[in-house]
Amino acid sequence: MTTAFDLPADHPFGPHNLPYGVFDHDGRTRVGVRVGDHVLDVCSVPGAPFADAWAAPSLDPFLALGRPAWQAARTWLTALIVDKSEHDMLALHLVPLAAVTMRLPFTVGDYVDFYASEQHATNVGRIFRPDAEALTPNWKHLPIGYHGRSGTIVLSGTDIVRPCGQRKPPTEPAPVFGPSTRLDIEAELGFVIGGAPSALGHPVPIDAADEHLFGVVLLNDWSARDLQAWEYVPLGPFLGKSFATTIGAWVVTMDALREARVPLPGQDPEPLPYLRGAADEGGEPAAYGLDISYEIDWNGTVVSRPEYRDMYWSPTQMLAHMTVNGATIRPGDFFGSGTISGARRDQRGSFLELSWAGAEPVVLADGSVRTFLEDGDTVTLRASAPGPDGSVIGLGECVGTIRAALAS
Amino acid sequence: MTTAFDLPADHPFGPHNLPYGVFDHDGRTRVGVRVGDHVLDVCSVPGAPFADAWAAPSLDPFLALGRPAWQAARTWLTALIVDKSEHDMLALHLVPLAAVTMRLPFTVGDYVDFYASEQHATNVGRIFRPDAEALTPNWKHLPIGYHGRSGTIVLSGTDIVRPCGQRKPPTEPAPVFGPSTRLDIEAELGFVIGGAPSALGHPVPIDAADEHLFGVVLLNDWSARDLQAWEYVPLGPFLGKSFATTIGAWVVTMDALREARVPLPGQDPEPLPYLRGAADEGGEPAAYGLDISYEIDWNGTVVSRPEYRDMYWSPTQMLAHMTVNGATIRPGDFFGSGTISGARRDQRGSFLELSWAGAEPVVLADGSVRTFLEDGDTVTLRASAPGPDGSVIGLGECVGTIRAALAS
Repeated sequence: MTTAFDLPADHPFGPHNLPYGVFDHDGRTRVGVRVGDHVLDVCSVPGAPFADAWAAPSLDPFLALGRPAWQAARTWLTALIVDKSEHDMLALHLVPLAAVTMRLPFTVGDYVDFYASEQHATNVGRIFRPDAEALTPNWKHLPIGYHGRSGTIVLSGTDIVRPCGQRKPPTEPAPVFGPSTRLDIEAELGFVIGGAPSALGHPVPIDAADEHLFGVVLLNDWSARDLQAWEYVPLGPFLGKSFATTIGAWVVTMDALREARVPLPGQDPEPLPYLRGAADEGGEPAAYGLDISYEIDWNGTVVSRPEYRDMYWSPTQMLAHMTVNGATIRPGDFFGSGTISGARRDQRGSFLELSWAGAEPVVLADGSVRTFLEDGDTVTLRASAPGPDGSVIGLGECVGTIRAALAS
Repeated sequence: MTTAFDLPADHPFGPHNLPYGVFDHDGRTRVGVRVGDHVLDVCSVPGAPFADAWAAPSLDPFLALGRPAWQAARTWLTALIVDKSEHDMLALHLVPLAAVTMRLPFTVGDYVDFYASEQHATNVGRIFRPDAEALTPNWKHLPIGYHGRSGTIVLSGTDIVRPCGQRKPPTEPAPVFGPSTRLDIEAELGFVIGGAPSALGHPVPIDAADEHLFGVVLLNDWSARDLQAWEYVPLGPFLGKSFATTIGAWVVTMDALREARVPLPGQDPEPLPYLRGAADEGGEPAAYGLDISYEIDWNGTVVSRPEYRDMYWSPTQMLAHMTVNGATIRPGDFFGSGTISGARRDQRGSFLELSWAGAEPVVLADGSVRTFLEDGDTVTLRASAPGPDGSVIGLGECVGTIRAALAS
């Protein structure tokens, strides 16, 4: 008999993945684990070890439990799913994906957006500041980041209304107001923080960062480049980014990404000690990269394939840096990697870079030509990573469609 | 008989003020209203119109009720307090301030920090960017702002641990790590947002801004200038600000500040229409200033007396700008005005400005000399505004003492 558990070895949501999400079904909102094209209603499975946390309408209580609970949950789930004698029982608690509505998986606390790709920072520097060095002098000494707006983080599938705001065309004496004419994406990876809150004034050392990293989601940091260019000096991006940030519905745990850990491409100069840390007992370095391959799909055409393994800074370095001044972290705090761009044109993670600020248009499969986003355009991010034994760890999709600006 | 209600006409917490806070007493945390040197336990007063909201351990439910409820509450409270026949009854629900522990008054959603003082922006521009124009070209076209860290907003009285981080002395070839050597304050006014959440993609027009402005708190935006100077190009302040932001315990409502509204000092060039709005039915302009006088006390010496009426941008303009791109606001979102600085040296709202980056030390009453903060220093912000009939609206105090950096 074929069951929901007879998945091909390379299925992106097979038994090595087990990502968490939050779903509505039968009038209740609760935590689920994706298995193939089904959601396992984990709190209803007899003997579920964290049933109370999983019965909540968000991952918040489970995030707060910390790494020992996350690992115990994974051990329990894995044992059930690989045991064929449990499949009939488990099948009673599976809901087809098509029958559920997904929700934002957690309550976002503080949201920090980093800038961890050397190639992206170099490209943006060349485009925004052509008369200066592409990388600012601080870039290789610290993972640059800034706070974004957590209240406008929305779930994959949410339509994006084209933002209005001020822009200053070089030919105009003063700024003009209207819909953004340079609406863009940024393909990123988002990191979800959990575990006990840290104490004010007490940094989280890099060697403890993994205790607080629960998992990752796909992230599209929509950006209005014309608004951003006019506003960002001296205090950084604000309205050019704050109108919407889309995240995927499935949080893939760091434990599911163990096989995807790779060395960083190399850091020169060597970072300060608080960004280095020691190798753990198993010899794993405290700073690591992740082998996650992205696809950026623009109206059905894959226009770019960035590789996360090209990122300069490790997520553990970002977390250590974010707290080295004594700033606290809480479960639900969230940070983005920054745009993932590689050396080749077809590895650029934003349309600003892909079209080189409009100078090099992109031709889609239907023959249409693009520089920035037009109303009605749909962008879909997809990504996957290697799992154990030739398996694939899927990160799912992160989708948004542009709607026209409101009449103003 | 003298009662808690026989307050001198110019008492900063008389019957025209009625600020809200959250207090612990007898093992319960709930909303209180300050009357003189007492807290009125409003949820326990017979007939209290919003007793359920006020019984909560934060202002969050009351903030969500919106302006009609805020005004009804004020009308009810005022009628009770001016009616001497109610004083014996009310006295049963008064707790001396000395017997309570105050708590953070609301759950901070997104925190935005603006930069609305022309004199402050000019001073900082001169100090940080001596080779460029002091004000960036965008400054008079839009209220510049950026997102801060909401998770490190702490209550007045919380000790501040000196932050560590990277700084780059001009004489060094590379950044060094250690405790900040240029720890500073910023005297600001914080605005607490309430009412129904706005919808994604739908700006809050300036004429509707007052519907969402619940009240104000004192705000000290602690700043590590050496960390900030090294990190802030190109994405703005991050660790130089995120280690702690102190707010006062008492939220003074916008309704208590009606008498303190004053015209803005003047805006030239005229802002774009979305920042102008129309006058309301009573002829009040949509953009206004506030006549709030500050004292900055450094270890017992008042070193500066900034005036909020000098601010260039109105709080309603800040709110309209913050949402013009379609970004949502929620009850509990919060924004700071930016440092309040006037034209005179003794009106500067930060020690960076007051000591001109250390070049002009400040002498305290005990003869000690200061440029930036030393361990053990205590800074207290105080402020008040005019109320009706010669009364005074006190904003209370915002206090913090610097503790040594942790050994690293």
